[in-house]
Amino acid sequence: MSSPRCDTLAVIGVGLIGGSLAIALRQAGFCRRIVGCGRQSANLEQAVALGVIDAYSTDPASAVAGADLVFVAVPLGAMRAVFEQIAPALKLGAVVSDGGSAKGSVVRDAEAAFAGSARRFVPGHPIAGNEKSGVSAAFGELYRGRRVILTPTAQTDADGLALVRAMWEAAGAEVEEMAVEHHDQVLAATSHLPHMLAFGLVDSLARLSDRVEIFRYAAGGFRDFTRIASSDPVMWKDICTANAEALLEALKRFEVDMQDMHAAVEQRDAERLLEIFSRAKAARDEFIG
Amino acid sequence: MSSPRCDTLAVIGVGLIGGSLAIALRQAGFCRRIVGCGRQSANLEQAVALGVIDAYSTDPASAVAGADLVFVAVPLGAMRAVFEQIAPALKLGAVVSDGGSAKGSVVRDAEAAFAGSARRFVPGHPIAGNEKSGVSAAFGELYRGRRVILTPTAQTDADGLALVRAMWEAAGAEVEEMAVEHHDQVLAATSHLPHMLAFGLVDSLARLSDRVEIFRYAAGGFRDFTRIASSDPVMWKDICTANAEALLEALKRFEVDMQDMHAAVEQRDAERLLEIFSRAKAARDEFIG
Repeated sequence: MSSPRCDTLAVIGVGLIGGSLAIALRQAGFCRRIVGCGRQSANLEQAVALGVIDAYSTDPASAVAGADLVFVAVPLGAMRAVFEQIAPALKLGAVVSDGGSAKGSVVRDAEAAFAGSARRFVPGHPIAGNEKSGVSAAFGELYRGRRVILTPTAQTDADGLALVRAMWEAAGAEVEEMAVEHHDQVLAATSHLPHMLAFGLVDSLARLSDRVEIFRYAAGGFRDFTRIASSDPVMWKDICTANAEALLEALKRFEVDMQDMHAAVEQRDAERLLEIFSRAKAARDEFIG
Repeated sequence: MSSPRCDTLAVIGVGLIGGSLAIALRQAGFCRRIVGCGRQSANLEQAVALGVIDAYSTDPASAVAGADLVFVAVPLGAMRAVFEQIAPALKLGAVVSDGGSAKGSVVRDAEAAFAGSARRFVPGHPIAGNEKSGVSAAFGELYRGRRVILTPTAQTDADGLALVRAMWEAAGAEVEEMAVEHHDQVLAATSHLPHMLAFGLVDSLARLSDRVEIFRYAAGGFRDFTRIASSDPVMWKDICTANAEALLEALKRFEVDMQDMHAAVEQRDAERLLEIFSRAKAARDEFIG
């Protein structure tokens, strides 16, 4: 194993995302020591017991005190507060990155909290995860072969960007760069809107009086379609509000298309439905299947 | 193995649904001989080669001539024509059933085509299948432990109903009975609407100019969410028009809920979103997970 790329890594939020990164980086020998931080001691003690982290603090400022690299994996709604807590405690030259699913809001939070040293902040988003959460769901292979999008801004420091890229590559990910706004549009369309639709549909059915019977007849297709509705509600209400602008854009586009389909069903326009369904199947089979 | 429950079974439409039933019934020794019928000789020859059926005809009337039991597994839009073709050729006392995903339209088709002998028609719907199609996708375990809903009408013959029930039980399914209208409402909510949403969303994205890039960043959640958009478009345009009434009802209900979520995002109302998402996650984890 080559010598570690950094000495101490601090991971704020040791759940599926932060925990899996810690495991992968330890396996890769990327850093010598990993300090975890979170609000619940029980979860952090479990993380130590599982060998995911070496030590922990429930105070973000203490956790980052000696760190060369800080990875913040908390819900988007908690980013600003965490940044503000760690800003005065960061070591000179320490690089900070995050795993937030929307980037515009995180960049705004970082610029506000880090002020003059925001250049050492590298916004990032691993396109990975599943509907599980907590450190017990973490595993070292989560990022293997998955894409990580970094969204450096005009002021992002090149050395910091290189370190964060190296970190993700050590975890097995394919790293790409994208503009903040473009990231948020792409993710609104492929992730945030689908989550909203899945949550919305399940809730719509759950409020029916015959819900028990209705769910009884839901088969495999429904199970797959609604898997993402088992995701963490706190994380997702944060994503939907943090990325509201791009999400609303995607939602409005979808609503227009839904009205078109609604009209086709109302008019029993089988040709029109066939056209839409065929185009969708062809696209999915080509790009996703 | 006990003696066969029926001598000759005819399967009209030897694809995933019809082919899997034939395989399961042969394995169970439910019938002595299985005759297939379809429009494409190549598919039927493959079905014979795979041992799914013993013989075939591309003419529905010839295929059912000696059959005691006929299972029709064609798209809903083809049901009426098949019923009309087989009606004059059915053996006295032959029982006919189907596997259509909507039942109101099939019952109307059967009553029109079979007239006085519609009592020997047993409408049914196996809640099974996947996004694949064709006899090469058929397998004998498809119905094991899955629900099959039979929707007998006031005139359905008790012996015919018992035979079709025995057929599905021989294939390993759990058979239940339900009123036609109720079936169509439950399936509109749990299957037809989700398919429409998945087709609609994929098509919505596929028509964007940056679709290649957009799909590139679609991760596992999107793959699961849109799996059903790889289903057979012909089958699904038939389902959505055949069950239009119940589908529109489910769609209108969902649209109202979507407007509510849209407003919550617009107002950055995190509390409201958290409430919806939490209720959805709880319902899915309880009923589906």
